[in-house]
Amino acid sequence: MTFLFPLLATATDTDDSSIVLAGVLLSLVVIYLASKLGSELSNWVGLPPVLGELVGGVVVGVSCLHLLVFPEVAPSTSSVITSFLQSTVGLSPQAAADAWETQSEVLGVMAELGAIVLLFEIGLESNLKELLAVGFQAAVVAVVGVVVPFAAGTVGLITLFGIPPIPAVFAGAALTATSIGITSRVLSELGRLNSPEGQIILGAAVIDDVLGIIVLAVVASLAKTGAVDVSNIVYLILSASGFLLGAVLLGNIFNKSFVVIVDKLKTRGELVIPAFIFAFLMAYFAAAIHLETILGAFAAGLVLEETDQRKELQKRVIPIADMLVPIFFVTVGAKTDLGVLNPAIPSNRAGLIMAVFLIAVAILGKLSTALAIFGNKQINRMAVGVGMIPRGEVGLVFVGIGSKIGILSKPLEAAIIMMVILTTFLAPPLLRLVFPQPSVDVAEIPDS
Amino acid sequence: MTFLFPLLATATDTDDSSIVLAGVLLSLVVIYLASKLGSELSNWVGLPPVLGELVGGVVVGVSCLHLLVFPEVAPSTSSVITSFLQSTVGLSPQAAADAWETQSEVLGVMAELGAIVLLFEIGLESNLKELLAVGFQAAVVAVVGVVVPFAAGTVGLITLFGIPPIPAVFAGAALTATSIGITSRVLSELGRLNSPEGQIILGAAVIDDVLGIIVLAVVASLAKTGAVDVSNIVYLILSASGFLLGAVLLGNIFNKSFVVIVDKLKTRGELVIPAFIFAFLMAYFAAAIHLETILGAFAAGLVLEETDQRKELQKRVIPIADMLVPIFFVTVGAKTDLGVLNPAIPSNRAGLIMAVFLIAVAILGKLSTALAIFGNKQINRMAVGVGMIPRGEVGLVFVGIGSKIGILSKPLEAAIIMMVILTTFLAPPLLRLVFPQPSVDVAEIPDS
Repeated sequence: MTFLFPLLATATDTDDSSIVLAGVLLSLVVIYLASKLGSELSNWVGLPPVLGELVGGVVVGVSCLHLLVFPEVAPSTSSVITSFLQSTVGLSPQAAADAWETQSEVLGVMAELGAIVLLFEIGLESNLKELLAVGFQAAVVAVVGVVVPFAAGTVGLITLFGIPPIPAVFAGAALTATSIGITSRVLSELGRLNSPEGQIILGAAVIDDVLGIIVLAVVASLAKTGAVDVSNIVYLILSASGFLLGAVLLGNIFNKSFVVIVDKLKTRGELVIPAFIFAFLMAYFAAAIHLETILGAFAAGLVLEETDQRKELQKRVIPIADMLVPIFFVTVGAKTDLGVLNPAIPSNRAGLIMAVFLIAVAILGKLSTALAIFGNKQINRMAVGVGMIPRGEVGLVFVGIGSKIGILSKPLEAAIIMMVILTTFLAPPLLRLVFPQPSVDVAEIPDS
Repeated sequence: MTFLFPLLATATDTDDSSIVLAGVLLSLVVIYLASKLGSELSNWVGLPPVLGELVGGVVVGVSCLHLLVFPEVAPSTSSVITSFLQSTVGLSPQAAADAWETQSEVLGVMAELGAIVLLFEIGLESNLKELLAVGFQAAVVAVVGVVVPFAAGTVGLITLFGIPPIPAVFAGAALTATSIGITSRVLSELGRLNSPEGQIILGAAVIDDVLGIIVLAVVASLAKTGAVDVSNIVYLILSASGFLLGAVLLGNIFNKSFVVIVDKLKTRGELVIPAFIFAFLMAYFAAAIHLETILGAFAAGLVLEETDQRKELQKRVIPIADMLVPIFFVTVGAKTDLGVLNPAIPSNRAGLIMAVFLIAVAILGKLSTALAIFGNKQINRMAVGVGMIPRGEVGLVFVGIGSKIGILSKPLEAAIIMMVILTTFLAPPLLRLVFPQPSVDVAEIPDS
């Protein structure tokens, strides 16, 4: 396609921002093609569409076609899109590298906005009362699902592999937090978000995330200073509980004013804009107290689910989610470097044996939560356990911080990444297996 | 709100991308508040909502509250949001500057995506056959609307103000191109997009943009080398005509395969994702041949308007536009530095007199297109002239390139910026004045 640009370099000054825009447009085309081909194929063979989006991301990403490569993941790999733009527009290598950097930052933020919109939509489809009704059960599941893999992972790494205590604790901690994004999307695709199992998984995943943040703070301060900063831990626990409680309590007051405000608005975006002001503010507040932004968005969705505009808002959020959420899933796939799974590379072999151990602990540890279900015999215990399996981006945050502090050996780091990849990609098909019913129609919004 | 972060700096390593995300989230909250307050107030006093979004942008932008400041517009002004994040998170000045830079790039791209979605939506609401039916009339209007202000502006600057020929030609060229974004949004708000006047304005604005690109290439090569690069001009004319013709012809074939493909898709985003793949590709192709991205998106919308899925697609694009388009309008306002209008600053005074002249030429030059309407006596001639007045971002592109080449004196540059500001902000209320009927309801989609 170089014929399009024969005179472009001389035509006018091509400034950097137009190159970045061109790169973002082409990247979005690649992302949407990967997500649609992936989700349709996955659905066609009877697997959850989101698995296809993740695999589509792997295909276009750093492991395969190199169309969508992020400098922070693979600084030495060049992006095909950037090279294409560089050769067609005649950029200097430095300008091309800068454009690639900026374009990746833009796509990274859009992927995070995708995750925020996803959890906002999940919140809108969930019901706070039902969630609180299973609250105690969910808390027990969450605690078991954090303690068992953490303890088993840490002890196993120390005794079986001779890993020093601090890195072992860190790796054990990486086994704890569930990826709420992937599980909730699969549950939504299966039409099981509002089943008792779905509510327990969702509630436990939220509590899990909070526990994961606390565990991370503990092990990070342990790794850096050798001691635990107790005041910091107390602060985190108080602010996290305060945030979740405050969201629920203030939400009951706020959702009435939301209805009154929205009724008064007469220009376009009268429902979507106030809703997103609230969702983005909550996401920011969550980030400010060191929770994940997506927890804030989920809380915002839960609050607005209580309003009369729920149905209409759900309908309007769907196209926005359709546009932004694939950026998140494809990016997760594109950043996944399957190179760590290659046994031909010597340094991977030591990691592979540890990875087998970590994967077993990761899966069995979360399946053990099935034993933590009490009372109601009707509940599909296996489904709850399986729903907690994917570690997704949360596990990778641990790896990122671990390698920044410099406490993870190369094989241990690779083993954790393998554990994250396997649990993330295994959970969607396993979930469909334990929920054998056919999925609901694509256009149908589950009543809530 | 500093109480939120007492221990944040010590809690974990706050990485740059989470600061950028926090900055983007807060900026989006500011943008949405400004756009909603602005559009509602504007609508309430009987002015077009989009004027309120622009003014809302001015209020939060570089001229006033400094909440939304872009480094490329005001490198020495600090952004309040960045300062807030810097003080709460404890960033170094360099890290804060980097985060501000990246955050602004992200918002800049999102604003451009907003403009792309806006013109895609306008394309979906327009009708290709009706547009082609007024094609010759629109072309005559466009040529008159380019030639008259260009000639009057250039000659006037040389004879009345003693400006050397090359800068005068450049300033004259800046008077030519209509801002399709602002006019089309106002027409849509007034429910007049598919009136004969609306179609003529839209058609003329598209041709205008193409003419503007050609004029820019001519004067830029004139300014840089003192001669006109004829082969480049021929290339630009051929590629622009080829693009527009190709879009129309290929569109007729493509929209059938679009329908077939969309009917086969079964997972979420089955309509929105293929539509945006097409729109973003067309936007990229337009940019690749040095047209504006928004022309590509408009052509994509026109093509898909011919399909059976038109109505459903229009409905789903609305929430996406509601979310992205305000970023574009508020950003235009936020980047507008009203400081150039301040007569207390000595260097502004010379510019002010020239600005009065340029504004008169800009308005009268476009109003003269009313005389270029032939045949049909039913057409509101004044409305067509008024619809062509706003220069918007296109005029600012001229200023940007002019100051990069270094041929515009400070007063002349300020005068062009004042002309752009005044024409942009005057056009929406004037358009409502010449189209006195009440606007259609916000939720109604005009049949097309």
